[in-house]
Amino acid sequence: MSMQAHPLSPLLAPRSVALVGASEKSIWTILILRNFKDFGYQGALHAVNRTGVDTFGVKGYRSCRDIGAPVDVAFIFVPIDAVPDALADAAAAGIRYATILTSGYAEVGEEGRRRQDALVAQAEALGVTLWGPNSLGYNNVEAGIPVSVIPVVKPFLPPSIAILSQSGATAAELAEYAHGQNIGTSFVAATGNEAQVSLAEIIDYLVDHESTRAIAVFAETIRNPAAFVRAAERARTKAKPIVVLKIGRSQLATQVAQAHTGSLVGDDAVFDAVCDRLGVIRVASTEDLINTAGLLAATGRLSADGLGFLSISGGACTLVADAAEAHGVRLPPNDPGTVAALRGVLSDLGSTLNPLDVTGAAMRDPDLFGRVIPLAAGAPGIGLLGVGIAVPTAEGQSLPPALTAIGRAAAAIETPSVVVSTCGKSLNDYARQSIAEHRLPHVMTGIDAFLRAAGNAIRWSARVDETGVAPTLVQDKLDQPPPLDTEQAVLTFLEGRGVPVVPQRLARSAGEAMRHAGDIGGPLALKIVSPDIAHKTEVGGVRLNVQAAQAGAVFEAIMADVIRARPGARLEGVSIAPMRGGGGLELLIGVRRDPTWGPVIAVGFGGVLVEVLADLAIAPLPVTRTQAAGLLRGLRGARLLDGFRGTAPADIDRLAQVIVDIGDAALSLGGGLAELEVNPLRVAGAEIEALDGLIVWRKET
Amino acid sequence: MSMQAHPLSPLLAPRSVALVGASEKSIWTILILRNFKDFGYQGALHAVNRTGVDTFGVKGYRSCRDIGAPVDVAFIFVPIDAVPDALADAAAAGIRYATILTSGYAEVGEEGRRRQDALVAQAEALGVTLWGPNSLGYNNVEAGIPVSVIPVVKPFLPPSIAILSQSGATAAELAEYAHGQNIGTSFVAATGNEAQVSLAEIIDYLVDHESTRAIAVFAETIRNPAAFVRAAERARTKAKPIVVLKIGRSQLATQVAQAHTGSLVGDDAVFDAVCDRLGVIRVASTEDLINTAGLLAATGRLSADGLGFLSISGGACTLVADAAEAHGVRLPPNDPGTVAALRGVLSDLGSTLNPLDVTGAAMRDPDLFGRVIPLAAGAPGIGLLGVGIAVPTAEGQSLPPALTAIGRAAAAIETPSVVVSTCGKSLNDYARQSIAEHRLPHVMTGIDAFLRAAGNAIRWSARVDETGVAPTLVQDKLDQPPPLDTEQAVLTFLEGRGVPVVPQRLARSAGEAMRHAGDIGGPLALKIVSPDIAHKTEVGGVRLNVQAAQAGAVFEAIMADVIRARPGARLEGVSIAPMRGGGGLELLIGVRRDPTWGPVIAVGFGGVLVEVLADLAIAPLPVTRTQAAGLLRGLRGARLLDGFRGTAPADIDRLAQVIVDIGDAALSLGGGLAELEVNPLRVAGAEIEALDGLIVWRKET
Repeated sequence: MSMQAHPLSPLLAPRSVALVGASEKSIWTILILRNFKDFGYQGALHAVNRTGVDTFGVKGYRSCRDIGAPVDVAFIFVPIDAVPDALADAAAAGIRYATILTSGYAEVGEEGRRRQDALVAQAEALGVTLWGPNSLGYNNVEAGIPVSVIPVVKPFLPPSIAILSQSGATAAELAEYAHGQNIGTSFVAATGNEAQVSLAEIIDYLVDHESTRAIAVFAETIRNPAAFVRAAERARTKAKPIVVLKIGRSQLATQVAQAHTGSLVGDDAVFDAVCDRLGVIRVASTEDLINTAGLLAATGRLSADGLGFLSISGGACTLVADAAEAHGVRLPPNDPGTVAALRGVLSDLGSTLNPLDVTGAAMRDPDLFGRVIPLAAGAPGIGLLGVGIAVPTAEGQSLPPALTAIGRAAAAIETPSVVVSTCGKSLNDYARQSIAEHRLPHVMTGIDAFLRAAGNAIRWSARVDETGVAPTLVQDKLDQPPPLDTEQAVLTFLEGRGVPVVPQRLARSAGEAMRHAGDIGGPLALKIVSPDIAHKTEVGGVRLNVQAAQAGAVFEAIMADVIRARPGARLEGVSIAPMRGGGGLELLIGVRRDPTWGPVIAVGFGGVLVEVLADLAIAPLPVTRTQAAGLLRGLRGARLLDGFRGTAPADIDRLAQVIVDIGDAALSLGGGLAELEVNPLRVAGAEIEALDGLIVWRKET
Repeated sequence: MSMQAHPLSPLLAPRSVALVGASEKSIWTILILRNFKDFGYQGALHAVNRTGVDTFGVKGYRSCRDIGAPVDVAFIFVPIDAVPDALADAAAAGIRYATILTSGYAEVGEEGRRRQDALVAQAEALGVTLWGPNSLGYNNVEAGIPVSVIPVVKPFLPPSIAILSQSGATAAELAEYAHGQNIGTSFVAATGNEAQVSLAEIIDYLVDHESTRAIAVFAETIRNPAAFVRAAERARTKAKPIVVLKIGRSQLATQVAQAHTGSLVGDDAVFDAVCDRLGVIRVASTEDLINTAGLLAATGRLSADGLGFLSISGGACTLVADAAEAHGVRLPPNDPGTVAALRGVLSDLGSTLNPLDVTGAAMRDPDLFGRVIPLAAGAPGIGLLGVGIAVPTAEGQSLPPALTAIGRAAAAIETPSVVVSTCGKSLNDYARQSIAEHRLPHVMTGIDAFLRAAGNAIRWSARVDETGVAPTLVQDKLDQPPPLDTEQAVLTFLEGRGVPVVPQRLARSAGEAMRHAGDIGGPLALKIVSPDIAHKTEVGGVRLNVQAAQAGAVFEAIMADVIRARPGARLEGVSIAPMRGGGGLELLIGVRRDPTWGPVIAVGFGGVLVEVLADLAIAPLPVTRTQAAGLLRGLRGARLLDGFRGTAPADIDRLAQVIVDIGDAALSLGGGLAELEVNPLRVAGAEIEALDGLIVWRKET
């Protein structure tokens, strides 16, 4: 797909812009025109205001209709009461896109939300697509087109990453941070209230944006989940990384966001699972957002998951070793061949470990870098090489010959490499000059920042070409639910969908109970079967460890207890199943419907782990067997699967298949399902059985 | 204690320095003299070299003895082979301190370690105290005295924190980072190999160093644990914060450090526990190290544990909410009085939550800050106020009137406050000028960095005046151990020390077994008692759930099985104890001897939590009851103590006392103890009993 073909091209890369509300007295006008000048905008520009006067040399009109030439975007920043007229005027002039800076809409509460709804209705009626409102706009750096008041940090750096932010102030601060890390921006946008165009559509546009090599997103909410999933999938197939900082990990943040933009923030753990599925990298800080995008933009996909590191500072090497472990980065030990080669090159001062302390010797003999870097980069399993040295922001911080040697060696190896300073800092003119002069590879500041970003980049690289299965998302169709309203019915349904369940029979009389008990043999579990009784134990509806010979009497006792406790409840009988003993694991497999992302499956170990530690792994449905196995391996208590205190190791393959089948069974019930739970699923080696099941339907049905 | 009185004052604040090895051709000489010049050093300086020529205008001598005036420190940077003569010459001239820059000692392996040992022996014989070797020296900024090649970052900022680093390159990078965060240094040192003077002694010196308001330490190892404990205790009683970044969280880092400086790195979790006991703040990154020290140096001890935050950026507010939760910082909700007061001040644009989004309205009406800041800072429970706004490093990043209003309001409140930008960056001349012009309070860059440091500062402030109990450290005296070589003997010993143990009796015959069994009543646990048998079950030495009537026969069976399995083992008989059933928690309480920090106690829940999740809390001995309760509350599974599946809540007070008693019992055994373990300690409400115990003695005894 070429850029021009994208439906949002006229909005995001306009060749003609009308500034609606332009005035020499308006700070907005001043900031907007400064941007057009700074970017060297080559397209057409028109000033529209009540009087039709020129504005700072831009030809003025009283109306968009007076312009008399095609206009791609009306950039509207008139007072809120004048917006509807401005929009109508733009539409009448044939303008199909409006970027609305004016605020006072959904972000200010109920009254504002009504105004916004009315604006959207007007735009839809007029056939105009809205960006904003309450947005600072966007700088399409690649195209040299700023439709924004987002300030530009100079000098321009070669474009590399896109920055999208729902918060305007944050967009500007992220762009400034990127600049300080010597990361150029290709596109910077503050999306504001996203009344129509949301992050998802812009991401989709950026997938084909030439100079955007990675997309960094700061989000409070994902307004169009289906479009987000589609855009992320398209980015993944093109190996264009998306990095997301989404707030909402804390309850408080969701409250603040709601007050801030009126946006609802979904279940955070579910969003984590969705990102994992989509190959979207999720981070927790602004710095990690930009550093990860910047690193991947510089290196592209890494071909191996090991990090090599070398430094003239032993301190840096120890810090890297600790930070690598903390951030899940593997530093593969050097193989014997590399060790031998390093021994040949290094004086007896250095070790041959990875990370490699080349010691101050490299300062006296900078050529050492030239000899060591190819060896460290060429060691088996190294996908990224870090070289620790002070990146100078002022004279005297590093010896130039060492930098020259590093730049030369880095250019000669195939492994992507990064020069890393120990602490974070902003790279200034001096640093940029030094980077250019010594032809340094990508530069990062701060060992912790480097290892965080490297971990993200490595994990993304390893998984980007996995065959994806998109989340089911919300199914709006509420099929008539089948009446799966007893444990027995749920287990029978699951069995029909290929899930192994404990054998059980329905007894409707004491005699039938005796016959079933005799067939099964004791000890047995007897439970009341009634669509009206959710908590069977509380009403005396459960007896465990029943001997077969007692089954008839116990049947009578259960019926009597339940009738006494819950007179009038519909009773279908008593289910009889063999007791399952110890010597196995008990898992909980639950499916529930997330209001944003649709059905998700949760897997955990029963008992202390799930109830005390909330040790659950979740994924959007459907899941593949590999993904189900990944969920199991991701549990904190995963070691239990390998056998514990004499328990046989769980048959992971088989167990993963059961999880897949439970998920598929839940999906087969359609959009009316609120919850399906198998608890416990008993696992003893390859013996796997659902012992109990529950289904809850959505209230709306 | 005045500064001059400190024994290290002549070394660390010398008034006369001899540069031994001075030469106009030496890069060291050039760097050293540049430092003396930059610092405006007012003391005496002498150049010593073979020819006795002047060096860059510093009067030259062929020997220290020729100087003819008192000299505090010989700063020695001659080649390694010339060091012994230089040291002897300095001693002969009456110089009592030598700072040795020369490298090639313990950091380069066995040969170097021997050289270092010889150097220390020579120094001891001569009565000279050594700093280094392999050290870049120290800049005593407060005193205007640099005995180092550590570069100075200009302009000088008001001194505030001390930076100590065992790695030289890292010392310089930390100082540069501090400068970029507008944090002045009072003392910067690279301690190198610490052949004599170690971090501990320098920390002790800095406790009384006027302008040092916090001490930041980067360490690979703590060479003098006893002195470190004393210095930390002294700092704590004076409420001078110590922040430590100590590597060694990963196995790899300890390997690298060993190759790097020949230092052994102790058990990392034990060091965490020691820091916790001493009120030392431990951090994991260089940035957190400097930011935490800088924040506490600026604010001093905080008087409440809540953080207030407000910003013109809603995005910043949501980021703060998430980061606060991630880093354990409490954002107390505003009380009704504050909410009402805020409602009176804010337009309907803003919420009244904490964090508080004052919205862009504050840009149009900067005075809003003046009205809101006192309210947010005055809300109950607020010990620190953060104000989020772009700290400008170039024109146009923030509106000056807003900064002026913030500076004025911050100066008028009693609560310490911090101005915070969303992303990390270096503060340059423009920023410093802006900070001075608007009289901004302490400035921090990066919300994540701010919350990390705030969390550290808040936790330290809450605990610094706790009555401390210093760790026992290593007891070198190996007392003759009592023969506690059976489970029975260990339980009896513990009982004698006040620890509740399960009642048990020793049977030496089947008849005695029957009598004891009759007294106790069944079911019973019978176990072989033998100093030669550690694993009783393996040799058939254990029978559980024995009925009282069977006790005689089971006694015979155990004896027969054990004699068959381990002929010749010394058998003392069979212990008989009542079986304890379910319905309680099982804890593991272990004491072991850490080679650096002495005996430490570990507490955990038996079963899955300790065996699969390694959920253990540890502390150096002795522990107080409060500390023991803190260990229990620090377990991931702590909720189990509140009752789980019908178990009675544990009596925490009583349980904590039992932990104290077990720890004291272990300490009473002296330095010969390697390990003492109570496993399980059964806890059912207030019923607490040790069911089994084991003691292992150190091999050296």
